[in-house]
Amino acid sequence: MSPITINAQRLWDDLMTLARFTEPNTPGWTRRFPSTAYQQGRQWLQAQMEAEGLTTHIDAAGNLFGRREGRENLPPIHVGSHTDTVMGGGRFDGALGVLGAFEAVRTLREDNLSLRHPLVVADYISEEATDYAVACMGSLAMCTDHFRAEWLERTVGGVTLRQAIIDMGGQPDKLGQPLVRPGEIAASLELHIEQGPVLEARGVKLAAVSGIVGIHRALLELQGKANHAGATPMDLRHDALAAAARMISAIEEIARAHPGTVGTVGKLEVQPNQGNVIAGAVTMMAEMRSLNMQEVDGMWAEFMTIAQKVCAERGITVQIFNETRMDSVIPPQWLHELVGHVCQRLDPHAIITPSGAGHDTSYVGLIAPAAMIFVPSLDGRSHAPEEYTAPEDLARGVQALAETIVEVDKSS
Amino acid sequence: MSPITINAQRLWDDLMTLARFTEPNTPGWTRRFPSTAYQQGRQWLQAQMEAEGLTTHIDAAGNLFGRREGRENLPPIHVGSHTDTVMGGGRFDGALGVLGAFEAVRTLREDNLSLRHPLVVADYISEEATDYAVACMGSLAMCTDHFRAEWLERTVGGVTLRQAIIDMGGQPDKLGQPLVRPGEIAASLELHIEQGPVLEARGVKLAAVSGIVGIHRALLELQGKANHAGATPMDLRHDALAAAARMISAIEEIARAHPGTVGTVGKLEVQPNQGNVIAGAVTMMAEMRSLNMQEVDGMWAEFMTIAQKVCAERGITVQIFNETRMDSVIPPQWLHELVGHVCQRLDPHAIITPSGAGHDTSYVGLIAPAAMIFVPSLDGRSHAPEEYTAPEDLARGVQALAETIVEVDKSS
Repeated sequence: MSPITINAQRLWDDLMTLARFTEPNTPGWTRRFPSTAYQQGRQWLQAQMEAEGLTTHIDAAGNLFGRREGRENLPPIHVGSHTDTVMGGGRFDGALGVLGAFEAVRTLREDNLSLRHPLVVADYISEEATDYAVACMGSLAMCTDHFRAEWLERTVGGVTLRQAIIDMGGQPDKLGQPLVRPGEIAASLELHIEQGPVLEARGVKLAAVSGIVGIHRALLELQGKANHAGATPMDLRHDALAAAARMISAIEEIARAHPGTVGTVGKLEVQPNQGNVIAGAVTMMAEMRSLNMQEVDGMWAEFMTIAQKVCAERGITVQIFNETRMDSVIPPQWLHELVGHVCQRLDPHAIITPSGAGHDTSYVGLIAPAAMIFVPSLDGRSHAPEEYTAPEDLARGVQALAETIVEVDKSS
Repeated sequence: MSPITINAQRLWDDLMTLARFTEPNTPGWTRRFPSTAYQQGRQWLQAQMEAEGLTTHIDAAGNLFGRREGRENLPPIHVGSHTDTVMGGGRFDGALGVLGAFEAVRTLREDNLSLRHPLVVADYISEEATDYAVACMGSLAMCTDHFRAEWLERTVGGVTLRQAIIDMGGQPDKLGQPLVRPGEIAASLELHIEQGPVLEARGVKLAAVSGIVGIHRALLELQGKANHAGATPMDLRHDALAAAARMISAIEEIARAHPGTVGTVGKLEVQPNQGNVIAGAVTMMAEMRSLNMQEVDGMWAEFMTIAQKVCAERGITVQIFNETRMDSVIPPQWLHELVGHVCQRLDPHAIITPSGAGHDTSYVGLIAPAAMIFVPSLDGRSHAPEEYTAPEDLARGVQALAETIVEVDKSS
């Protein structure tokens, strides 16, 4: 097969055009929900979709869709990602999944390939976490009942979330119940940069994603006692940072002992944080991730046992806040195999790897068969201006996406 | 002996009167160098000294002295501490040493006890560290050549250190060389609250201080690589916080293995400090203290070996800044024994303990036989409004100070 021919230059040009929509006076590339730059980028995208003949639509959450009809009366295949960024982000995280989907649709038309299913290019709103809401707000609101009405009253920079969603074309008061039900989407595909170092380290260009790992995460507050670092003997201390250090090492050891899992403390704050004062309190965010939720739960329990022990030994109290546990999302076997075959056709060394990061597919996968394809990230970098994937690698990803669409259309 | 009778109520009243000089709109008690509250407190003290018949004098550094002549032409015995505080401090740290010295002088007069040596009540300036200079600025300037001329140009709140010293009665351009030479002070005594939990934990009321511990301290900068906490496998990480955690634990273990020593990381900062991003960099202040400098040096070397190892294992570079090594200050044997005998007379369970904190005696001890006496700190607290020592414990400390003065006067 492969009559499909991706236009690598056109894809690159689209990515660079979208990148021009960036908030002034910010580093790198920045399109934060609900900034003017983000809105203008979406307006440009919507105009492109319409010029291509797609029927555009914004749902109650503010997700933007461009639809091409199919030959049969079937639920659509959704293909997409997001166009917002972190503050000072890059040009490919999210944007590749949306503009790659659009390039795939365009190529299918040029190659006169009609499909049985309708095909929808999706731009899910506010995938990056904001002060309004958790990450993946748009896909969460579309696919789950997790959207909380009280979020609508939150105000950032003088604007409520309700107003921000209205400004982006949504209908906030309709949120709270899923906007799409199981069966209403035939399949969902998301092409994304890896945002990690694995593909580059293994010298491969494509990966079929075996699933999005589940996460156990919590904020831990250790309360000890601030005292003079010179005048307090070791045996009379309640050093919250000494206890935290043991816990950080425990997480590292537990994750190393379970191949394929990760465990991290990335955020830690010390009170009063003075060189000559024993730490009276430490707040830290701890998380563990695996495709296997039983394994995550076991690792977390092991960590909690050690945490209680090191705190008790030092007379430290520990409180746990904002504990969250997100299930892993795993594509159905048929779809995972299909994506794997396409990737191997285009790169004989293509690998199968889990996604350690969350994506819109984390939520769309709850209501539809959903899979992801990864292309390499230079140096594993993402969420930074240095984020980069070579144009030919981006095009190969879109090639895999387009071929997957054609095969899914036949199979489902 | 003990015809000396301390007036515990008068001492307490003096402490409470000095406490009324506090900067407005600050928590607890605050007399920062060179605030109006600090200046007014010193003016009150100087007036009290003069009313008592002492001859007052401010040296080039701004240290305030009140002198009572002796019967013989001998160098003076210096007795004192400081009247400045940390921001939001307490009523006893420093103040006890100055007002206790003043109460001792007053009691000696009332008890008609004349001395061979002149007796000087000393209020050393700016003992607490400021943005202008290191801690113990006044005693440092008096006893060493460590005072740097460039500090004079530093500006805090629009005021240079030069102007601030002038405002406090000093002559800044005379600083840089010691103002007092060995032999010019017969002996120096400092009564201080412990600022630690040892006396309270052991149920004792007095301690003869065996010395002020030496310190090895440095700022360590660990440079790893910030990466996605989900997408980066454990074996491809350069996690600066994981390395820092091992180093914090190493310091705790090394200090525990050397009784009487302490080791602390009290200040630590993570970059970028986000829950889902592996720590790219960590800055931390590490310190170790012991009376035995050889022991401190050995402990630091052991720590450095472990630091290099845990960083190398994780592909982390470590840089060391602001490394300082302060020698311990130990009283001469005769003076230490003399203080110990006086303390045991007043509290049969009195102990001998090192001072883990630095004091003006750290510098005065470089040029004169110098010793300290500790009274308990409730709950080990200091540098906080909760700082407290019971009036009878304060008076017992001054009793010990006065009796020590009388015995030193005979012995030296």
